[in-house]
Amino acid sequence: MALKSNIKPVALLDKSLILIDQTLLPYEYKSVELKTYKDVANAIKTMVVRGAPAIGISGAHGFTLGAIENKKERNMNVFLDKMSDIAQYLISQRPTAVNLEWAVNKQMTFAKANSNLPVEDLVKKIWENSKKLELEDIDINIKIGDNGAAIIPKGATILTHCNAGALATVGYGTALGVVRSAFEKDKTIQVFADETRPRQQGARLTTWELIEDNIPTTLITDGMCGYFMKKGMIDVVVVGADRIAANGDTANKIGTYTVALAAKAHKVPFYIAAPLSTIDTTIQSGDEIEIEERDPMEVTHINGKTICAQGVNIINPSFDVTPNELIAGIITEKGILKSDYKKSIKNAFKQM
Amino acid sequence: MALKSNIKPVALLDKSLILIDQTLLPYEYKSVELKTYKDVANAIKTMVVRGAPAIGISGAHGFTLGAIENKKERNMNVFLDKMSDIAQYLISQRPTAVNLEWAVNKQMTFAKANSNLPVEDLVKKIWENSKKLELEDIDINIKIGDNGAAIIPKGATILTHCNAGALATVGYGTALGVVRSAFEKDKTIQVFADETRPRQQGARLTTWELIEDNIPTTLITDGMCGYFMKKGMIDVVVVGADRIAANGDTANKIGTYTVALAAKAHKVPFYIAAPLSTIDTTIQSGDEIEIEERDPMEVTHINGKTICAQGVNIINPSFDVTPNELIAGIITEKGILKSDYKKSIKNAFKQM
Repeated sequence: MALKSNIKPVALLDKSLILIDQTLLPYEYKSVELKTYKDVANAIKTMVVRGAPAIGISGAHGFTLGAIENKKERNMNVFLDKMSDIAQYLISQRPTAVNLEWAVNKQMTFAKANSNLPVEDLVKKIWENSKKLELEDIDINIKIGDNGAAIIPKGATILTHCNAGALATVGYGTALGVVRSAFEKDKTIQVFADETRPRQQGARLTTWELIEDNIPTTLITDGMCGYFMKKGMIDVVVVGADRIAANGDTANKIGTYTVALAAKAHKVPFYIAAPLSTIDTTIQSGDEIEIEERDPMEVTHINGKTICAQGVNIINPSFDVTPNELIAGIITEKGILKSDYKKSIKNAFKQM
Repeated sequence: MALKSNIKPVALLDKSLILIDQTLLPYEYKSVELKTYKDVANAIKTMVVRGAPAIGISGAHGFTLGAIENKKERNMNVFLDKMSDIAQYLISQRPTAVNLEWAVNKQMTFAKANSNLPVEDLVKKIWENSKKLELEDIDINIKIGDNGAAIIPKGATILTHCNAGALATVGYGTALGVVRSAFEKDKTIQVFADETRPRQQGARLTTWELIEDNIPTTLITDGMCGYFMKKGMIDVVVVGADRIAANGDTANKIGTYTVALAAKAHKVPFYIAAPLSTIDTTIQSGDEIEIEERDPMEVTHINGKTICAQGVNIINPSFDVTPNELIAGIITEKGILKSDYKKSIKNAFKQM
């Protein structure tokens, strides 16, 4: 299987995890090597790694490093108790992206299911399971990309928000996976990338990874989407997701919902691209999705310098929820789910 | 007449123009003294002064400085030819804001109408006319503010975009004039200020001037408007204007249209606050408004540092047009104009 993008932000080694430090991009391309689960938790919290699928796999790997740290434990029950605490600690770092919970819980369930083994053997198995999740993620993304390419018109301009790219996953990307698969077939497509304030993942990460892959990219500020849609310059919107409810309501990076409203007003189709692991069937609608609020400094400062007057109030929700009626389809590894989402999501899980 | 805000960004002295350098705010509060029309033209182009009404009065003052530079000219025809060139040069600095054209043309018409005088006497009259326009602007803004305060509900949260404040005018402001008049009556109102990328006038200028006047202000990023509207946290939107067509279509800072779309989707009333001098009755609709495109560096750099990967394309429209059907009313010094705007605008001009 060819990895069609060379960007690999998450890679598990024997006893450590290698992450591209995404807080430094596009100024500096640097990897960090993490050796403890606490280091991984901190990297998730501070967004050294970000993007729902990448956070998920990093969480699974953090669990694995925690297991390695405890491999000398002789009592399986004590070991499992410790791993349960480690799992909760990892999950608590970012509340909105469900993939973190999904991947860490998957590891915990796997550990319990194999608790008949000696601890040291179980730890080896946990490592193997972690690596398997990592490799599967790329495979899933390529499927998402190939499924999604079908909805990209010839010569289309695709608007995306935030970074749902190779950097947000183990490689290839979800929304940008769709872009990559479409570009492979049609070199005349191009991307408009929203800057995505406050943390500018669109400006810093999406422009960087698309230009690395020679895909023509225009950077716009977040407020410009309505202007370009009205001019007929946007053919389709494709974004990622951090958590999708059972009815298709989708939490994604703050600003996504405003783009979806503009798309609706201009009849521009608005798609979500995400693996099934982003769908949280335990919640019925977007109203139940917890929205993480982050440091006010993300709004008031850019590159370490303040951009506003002192004394201003800040509310910094990191995500918003786009209701299902604004979504033309959810592009997954099992095909494109359409409304009625309750049914199509249920059916997709049945196929698994 | 009390000037209810102490911020005065434009002030004509005997032989020079004093401007607050708005490119330095909120980091530094500094005035510059300009002595030639070319310096004024450059200050308009580089946005030392910005905001449609402030640009207009600055243009009138630039014309006056040009007249002073030529006061030794003995031939009135030569003088008027020179002044005509100066007028065109000033107007050409910013194509979208009609107030610049309006104020400079007003000065040119005044000069021609008084060309029976000796040049030196005419130059004195031009100075007086300039000062009159300056003082009238504050008066007009207070009327806009007082008219607009009527549509602000008790305890309202008002969303604004860009800076249509004291800094955008000679003082008091248009959209923020409405805020000031409303706050005078009701201390429980508050403002949500869009950052307004690319040039961040909301973050840099609106937060600064509102906090100077102790009006509670929350800074949000441009993409957040949909989120806060959906949560029911925004009661009304009030923004300024750079040019309004005869049918009410309104050009304002890029991003305004996207806010208007979000407001429409949430049934939040969306108002324009502007003097009649912002209405260009020579154009029938927003389609005819020329949209200024500015330096790509405004998008790619913040505080002198790049925010994106090299090689990215940039399109940087400085304004967008909000169609009349999204506008609940245009708050002017002659009252609040309502749809049908063709009729209400025509009537407002008849009253003048």
